Amino acid sequence: MAIVGGGPSGLVAGYYLARAGKKVALFERKLSVGGGMWGGGMMFNEIIVQESALHILEEFGIRYHHYEETYYTADSLEAVSTLISGAIKAGLTIFNCVSVEDVIMRPERVIGLVVNWSAAEIAGLHVDPLALRSRFIIDATGHDTEVVRVVQRKVPGKLNTTSGKVEGEQSMWSDKAETLTLKNTREVFPGIYVAGMAANATYGGPRMGPIFGGMLLSGERVAQLILKRLKS
Amino acid sequence: MAIVGGGPSGLVAGYYLARAGKKVALFERKLSVGGGMWGGGMMFNEIIVQESALHILEEFGIRYHHYEETYYTADSLEAVSTLISGAIKAGLTIFNCVSVEDVIMRPERVIGLVVNWSAAEIAGLHVDPLALRSRFIIDATGHDTEVVRVVQRKVPGKLNTTSGKVEGEQSMWSDKAETLTLKNTREVFPGIYVAGMAANATYGGPRMGPIFGGMLLSGERVAQLILKRLKS
Amino acid sequence: MAIVGGGPSGLVAGYYLARAGKKVALFERKLSVGGGMWGGGMMFNEIIVQESALHILEEFGIRYHHYEETYYTADSLEAVSTLISGAIKAGLTIFNCVSVEDVIMRPERVIGLVVNWSAAEIAGLHVDPLALRSRFIIDATGHDTEVVRVVQRKVPGKLNTTSGKVEGEQSMWSDKAETLTLKNTREVFPGIYVAGMAANATYGGPRMGPIFGGMLLSGERVAQLILKRLKS
Amino acid sequence: MAIVGGGPSGLVAGYYLARAGKKVALFERKLSVGGGMWGGGMMFNEIIVQESALHILEEFGIRYHHYEETYYTADSLEAVSTLISGAIKAGLTIFNCVSVEDVIMRPERVIGLVVNWSAAEIAGLHVDPLALRSRFIIDATGHDTEVVRVVQRKVPGKLNTTSGKVEGEQSMWSDKAETLTLKNTREVFPGIYVAGMAANATYGGPRMGPIFGGMLLSGERVAQLILKRLKS
Amino acid sequence: MAIVGGGPSGLVAGYYLARAGKKVALFERKLSVGGGMWGGGMMFNEIIVQESALHILEEFGIRYHHYEETYYTADSLEAVSTLISGAIKAGLTIFNCVSVEDVIMRPERVIGLVVNWSAAEIAGLHVDPLALRSRFIIDATGHDTEVVRVVQRKVPGKLNTTSGKVEGEQSMWSDKAETLTLKNTREVFPGIYVAGMAANATYGGPRMGPIFGGMLLSGERVAQLILKRLKS
Amino acid sequence: MAIVGGGPSGLVAGYYLARAGKKVALFERKLSVGGGMWGGGMMFNEIIVQESALHILEEFGIRYHHYEETYYTADSLEAVSTLISGAIKAGLTIFNCVSVEDVIMRPERVIGLVVNWSAAEIAGLHVDPLALRSRFIIDATGHDTEVVRVVQRKVPGKLNTTSGKVEGEQSMWSDKAETLTLKNTREVFPGIYVAGMAANATYGGPRMGPIFGGMLLSGERVAQLILKRLKS
Amino acid sequence: MAIVGGGPSGLVAGYYLARAGKKVALFERKLSVGGGMWGGGMMFNEIIVQESALHILEEFGIRYHHYEETYYTADSLEAVSTLISGAIKAGLTIFNCVSVEDVIMRPERVIGLVVNWSAAEIAGLHVDPLALRSRFIIDATGHDTEVVRVVQRKVPGKLNTTSGKVEGEQSMWSDKAETLTLKNTREVFPGIYVAGMAANATYGGPRMGPIFGGMLLSGERVAQLILKRLKS
Amino acid sequence: MAIVGGGPSGLVAGYYLARAGKKVALFERKLSVGGGMWGGGMMFNEIIVQESALHILEEFGIRYHHYEETYYTADSLEAVSTLISGAIKAGLTIFNCVSVEDVIMRPERVIGLVVNWSAAEIAGLHVDPLALRSRFIIDATGHDTEVVRVVQRKVPGKLNTTSGKVEGEQSMWSDKAETLTLKNTREVFPGIYVAGMAANATYGGPRMGPIFGGMLLSGERVAQLILKRLKS
Repeated sequence: MAIVGGGPSGLVAGYYLARAGKKVALFERKLSVGGGMWGGGMMFNEIIVQESALHILEEFGIRYHHYEETYYTADSLEAVSTLISGAIKAGLTIFNCVSVEDVIMRPERVIGLVVNWSAAEIAGLHVDPLALRSRFIIDATGHDTEVVRVVQRKVPGKLNTTSGKVEGEQSMWSDKAETLTLKNTREVFPGIYVAGMAANATYGGPRMGPIFGGMLLSGERVAQLILKRLKS
Repeated sequence: MAIVGGGPSGLVAGYYLARAGKKVALFERKLSVGGGMWGGGMMFNEIIVQESALHILEEFGIRYHHYEETYYTADSLEAVSTLISGAIKAGLTIFNCVSVEDVIMRPERVIGLVVNWSAAEIAGLHVDPLALRSRFIIDATGHDTEVVRVVQRKVPGKLNTTSGKVEGEQSMWSDKAETLTLKNTREVFPGIYVAGMAANATYGGPRMGPIFGGMLLSGERVAQLILKRLKS
Repeated sequence: MAIVGGGPSGLVAGYYLARAGKKVALFERKLSVGGGMWGGGMMFNEIIVQESALHILEEFGIRYHHYEETYYTADSLEAVSTLISGAIKAGLTIFNCVSVEDVIMRPERVIGLVVNWSAAEIAGLHVDPLALRSRFIIDATGHDTEVVRVVQRKVPGKLNTTSGKVEGEQSMWSDKAETLTLKNTREVFPGIYVAGMAANATYGGPRMGPIFGGMLLSGERVAQLILKRLKS
Repeated sequence: MAIVGGGPSGLVAGYYLARAGKKVALFERKLSVGGGMWGGGMMFNEIIVQESALHILEEFGIRYHHYEETYYTADSLEAVSTLISGAIKAGLTIFNCVSVEDVIMRPERVIGLVVNWSAAEIAGLHVDPLALRSRFIIDATGHDTEVVRVVQRKVPGKLNTTSGKVEGEQSMWSDKAETLTLKNTREVFPGIYVAGMAANATYGGPRMGPIFGGMLLSGERVAQLILKRLKS
Repeated sequence: MAIVGGGPSGLVAGYYLARAGKKVALFERKLSVGGGMWGGGMMFNEIIVQESALHILEEFGIRYHHYEETYYTADSLEAVSTLISGAIKAGLTIFNCVSVEDVIMRPERVIGLVVNWSAAEIAGLHVDPLALRSRFIIDATGHDTEVVRVVQRKVPGKLNTTSGKVEGEQSMWSDKAETLTLKNTREVFPGIYVAGMAANATYGGPRMGPIFGGMLLSGERVAQLILKRLKS
Repeated sequence: MAIVGGGPSGLVAGYYLARAGKKVALFERKLSVGGGMWGGGMMFNEIIVQESALHILEEFGIRYHHYEETYYTADSLEAVSTLISGAIKAGLTIFNCVSVEDVIMRPERVIGLVVNWSAAEIAGLHVDPLALRSRFIIDATGHDTEVVRVVQRKVPGKLNTTSGKVEGEQSMWSDKAETLTLKNTREVFPGIYVAGMAANATYGGPRMGPIFGGMLLSGERVAQLILKRLKS
Repeated sequence: MAIVGGGPSGLVAGYYLARAGKKVALFERKLSVGGGMWGGGMMFNEIIVQESALHILEEFGIRYHHYEETYYTADSLEAVSTLISGAIKAGLTIFNCVSVEDVIMRPERVIGLVVNWSAAEIAGLHVDPLALRSRFIIDATGHDTEVVRVVQRKVPGKLNTTSGKVEGEQSMWSDKAETLTLKNTREVFPGIYVAGMAANATYGGPRMGPIFGGMLLSGERVAQLILKRLKS
Repeated sequence: MAIVGGGPSGLVAGYYLARAGKKVALFERKLSVGGGMWGGGMMFNEIIVQESALHILEEFGIRYHHYEETYYTADSLEAVSTLISGAIKAGLTIFNCVSVEDVIMRPERVIGLVVNWSAAEIAGLHVDPLALRSRFIIDATGHDTEVVRVVQRKVPGKLNTTSGKVEGEQSMWSDKAETLTLKNTREVFPGIYVAGMAANATYGGPRMGPIFGGMLLSGERVAQLILKRLKS
């Protein structure tokens, strides 16, 4: 199994898949893993999590405090480092400094990834990539939906969305974002699931801001969907 | 109330709204406020103002001299610094170094802004933004119409213009620009007003050059429109 | 009269218009005038000129040698410096370091230019431009057709070409390029003439390579067309 | 004869054409020749070659080892340097640091190339190019299909492909890529052949990854096609 | 009189000199004037001013609030815009976008400045400067002490400091900085005075942080010193 | 207490100080914390730790395997994320995106730090810093020894080293590096301790390569030294 | 004979040497020749020339007007283009886009130049240079004294100046600059003469500003000195 | 054995060492190997070789032609690709895209290299290096003498040269360069030999220009010196 993107939804997905005993690798373009969570909201190191996602914080042992109504806060640096630490200890293998250039395609489905050193890309070196097979791929690359966009470019109009294309992220609507993110966490093309902000960007859901509950729940959900499928 | 863009029209709008006792914040992407007014015309520190806008210069205490016909000149640096100083003293709160990434959307209208440090954006740091509620938003971002373009991208075709899209600024026609700028200063989407060059760019009016009367009057007008609406 | 672009066709046009006693200004974006002629062909300092254009070399006092058939060669640096020197002595006024941002438009025609320091543009400084009136404008900006493209963007589909748009330069066909360049040297929008490579790019003619005869003749032609028009 | 692009398919084509006694020049944009082969797969200096292409390795004297099934490996640096060395010794003339800007076009076919120093392009110097006649041109520029794209831009819709346009490279499908690359190695416009990855990118075949057999065979094939044509 | 650098000390110096009826010009390298004051402390828009400098805030009409002990706070944007506005209204002429390249030197003293467009410098254009005579020059360029460093480079060892060279700014010691800044505000070479942070950097005083009282008082002091000298 | 630099030695020092109930803040210039540990050795995600440092891995719960002799390996991503997570849970407060510009100096010792947003620095914005008091400062900035270098520049020759200056890091000598790093972990100027690679760079010890035991032990040691001092 | 640098002094030197029948080549790093003269003074296209240099303007046929006292003005673009045009017509060969990397040295004197494409240098391509023999070399590279600095770096302390090193340009003193420039125009090392601003920079003379008389006279002088030497 | 730098001297050294059955690795910072030889002289693809070095061309099978006196020419691309191809076939292992950061030092000598991905360096990623042991190291890095400079920085004044430091390359003196290069090819610090231009730069010999005989002979010489030492 391959996860692309090392933000909160990718890490949570990797945790639950690895804990279930699956062999799962996560590819992150940057040197450090964790994505936008390091910066909290505008560099104030606080994130907000909805009540419905507290069980995931508890699963990892991340401390939280009540904020108001059904919202809780956590330290963004504690959250991101503990998610990474917990996912690796659960068995997730992380390849950082690696970017995804392409997918391996069969007529009926995607069966793998084409990866490369992101440093070579940044340095402008012409280096050929390597290919890796993977039964399922989770696109957790956030706004950019990098894997889904490769598929869209190579086989136009075939995505499992209303228009057949990436619908594009909508403006912020925090209240609805959590529910819609979960609904949008699904298989968008045979072999490719979307999770986290990539799910909203693919299906046209609203963005969230520094409220991370939806991200965490989306990671949990995509792991459940794939585990169920593997059993059936 | 939130104003986006700290050029002359935004500052004048902020002044009149604050003077009327409203709570109003202005967001400027750059470290310094004032926009293109610092450079006068091609770095010659002189701006031209039409007679019809002289009452605004007088309101702020900016000195002017007669130039020819109905045109007057003022020192661009005196004008820009006095507009900022005057607006702040009237009660306007300015947040510089802050850029607007997105709006908060409800099906029927825009109800707020999603903001971030512009320094993080320039430095290429992946930092999540914060969200702020605001009853009305004035897009005074000039040629770029940054806020209006966000709305156009997220809900295509829904602007209150002929084509439903940003019409784009026309070539210079100074004589007509003042009248048209005022006519184009209006609510372009529920919750969003346009002022100054953003008004012309949105509704397809002509650009102005270093004649700033239309800018000042557009700022005054947008404040009047919103104050009237708040009363009704 | 205003000429935009200081390459060979613009300089020759400026020379003939100034020699005829007209007041004519040339605007060049770069610090030095002369465009691509400084580099000859791939930095080998030789240009090729067709027999039909030798009278222009002679008019300026540029030396040439026979090459083969109806082709002659000249030193590219002698040619470019002597064209500039000759045009200025004939009365042309050149403003270097100035770029054209926009035109001044009336419903029926273009009546002037909106100019700015190109250094401010390169330095990323937000500086407002100045406006200048001009009865006729010659777009001699080469492949980029900068002035014509402004008109196309502001009033789409109104150019005097087959498609109403810039047709785009065709691949190289040196033999035909000279004839077609002259044919394409004409008024493309009320108030705007195209000359040199801008003529071919606008009307879809072939590019030329380091054979400069067409350029020189196009500059001469556009001057003749405007002088004739002024008389009528 | 002119070959554009100094990767493996271009070098092999150059070798076979030169060995057959034809006068053939290869133009490479970079200072060094060899393209992506220097980097092997993700900078691990190993390339994979299919059994069907071993005769080309043997022709050049490149050593290989059996890997698995019908796949063999070779050292990427030995392969690339020996291809270059062998092609030059066979009579190929290589011009490095030269980029192709345009083609010379006649109504019925392409008859040459317009070339320039790539260093001038990178340095942002405005330097005019030179023109070179060539009976046939091989576009071996890889993913970018630089020559074919020039033709597409200048005479839209006239390529010898299903859509008349560049179809675009498909996702990786290594098993099929070799066969399809050979099938796609053909004349795409009168006077222009495509080889290597440019063939797949033009006709919509799958990309290959670090399996280079198809590249080598495509180079051999395009040479055979042109030699046959020259005889007829 | 010429002031180099448009931060708080330069503006206050310009205000007092202009108010005393002297002809005084201020040169600022950037498009906007005001220097580091726009950013307050780490972009929190608050500055701190000591009690001893409150009379200057009152002179300009800048509002302040008591903070603790002898410290007061003011809004940084109100302060900077009001300083600029007030200085210009008092008669100061500001040339923005202008950098100082050199001084005009006589054996016994400096008698003027050599200035250029800072935009040309940023854009990398080779443009020759202009020369301006000035009886006294105030270097208010902050940490960089730009004018003093020119003198040091051209006539080494002749500054009126302990070592004859720029001593370099010391680490922060806010309590002492105010007193030392005033002491360091003096003539460092015949014709050149230093003010503000440039005074501390020249004479080796401690830096201050976002406590601006010393800056304002240094600007006042340098004006007094020059006015006294002009009378004598 | 303030720690500058979020690599392994800084994190371990922060852990032990926080666990002892001290109030301690860590400042890191980058968005993510962890320094060079994210990249393991040449992006192969493995670090090597000596036997003598295994108790620190065990204290944090980082898994390790025996490699050879007294060397053990750990996953670099597990190690770095678990160090961060553990240190924060122990009570360390981390401020990321913050750089240290200067120190607050009294004649006899350093008593605090002058900090700023690193994003403003990268974005080239002129923003004034803030000052923070701290009884002890640990320079854990690696090769750059950023804090120590500030002291060296401001009060030359006063460091507690053989030459009074930063001695500079020596070439790699892994066997000796661990012992020397511990010996070099000490107070280099009243109020400033050095730890990790900054200790070796300051006192002229050898660099280590991807063997991290010395780093971890140095972090533990500097915490012990400071805790002992606080008791006395 | 080789001249390095295509500003006014180099062009005038080239003119007089070529007119005397000598074979002389000028190397200019940029695409266009003329140096800082294109920009006049701060982009105002006017240069000032002293009475003593008027005969050179007249020699080239550059028009001038009386300004005040012994100063005259000329159009900077007319001047620079006419100098280039005149020098080439007199027989000077110009190689533009060529930079000088080194000299060819014999124990007793310099006997040639090592040149390269400046475009390759800008593009960061590692390209080896070529070597050219020349009996005398004139360094007319302005402030940078590029050739003299090469000699200084390779054989330190051997220049024919007071200190044996480049003395460095002094601050502006226009009145004296003309006289001193002529005095400083001399042989600074066996085989190398300095002219124009390079003469002042080498011997420590004052800079001039936009008064170009000294430049022109220095070019004339260096030609006289070399012609005299060749005769003896 | 380790060679640093993949230009002609390094490749020839690697060839002779490998042919003698030694295990030898070459590290090259760039993606392609060959250094400045790809560009010939100013991108004209011709190199010049002295008679005394012809046996090396013959050893590799590089074709040459007589030029004049004792000078011969070869095609630069044939030469560079055949050197690489021949060296690898002789048994040399090349690691491209790898840069050398440091050496492994024992008090008495250098015993290895500290290497890293050059792509990570270019991309600005903080990645720790790896260490490799090597009995002898050949610095063939050309003008930069990268390895020797590391030693000089870490143990100042200990090089086996007149001054104990890198002497710096002298100006071009082609006639003498060959002899001196051979003389300078020697052990400069226990464990480190210099070859090619690095030898001249270290010992203060003259540079060569596009005459490559000295490079080739220096590569041969350094291999002989090391082979002899290994026997003794």
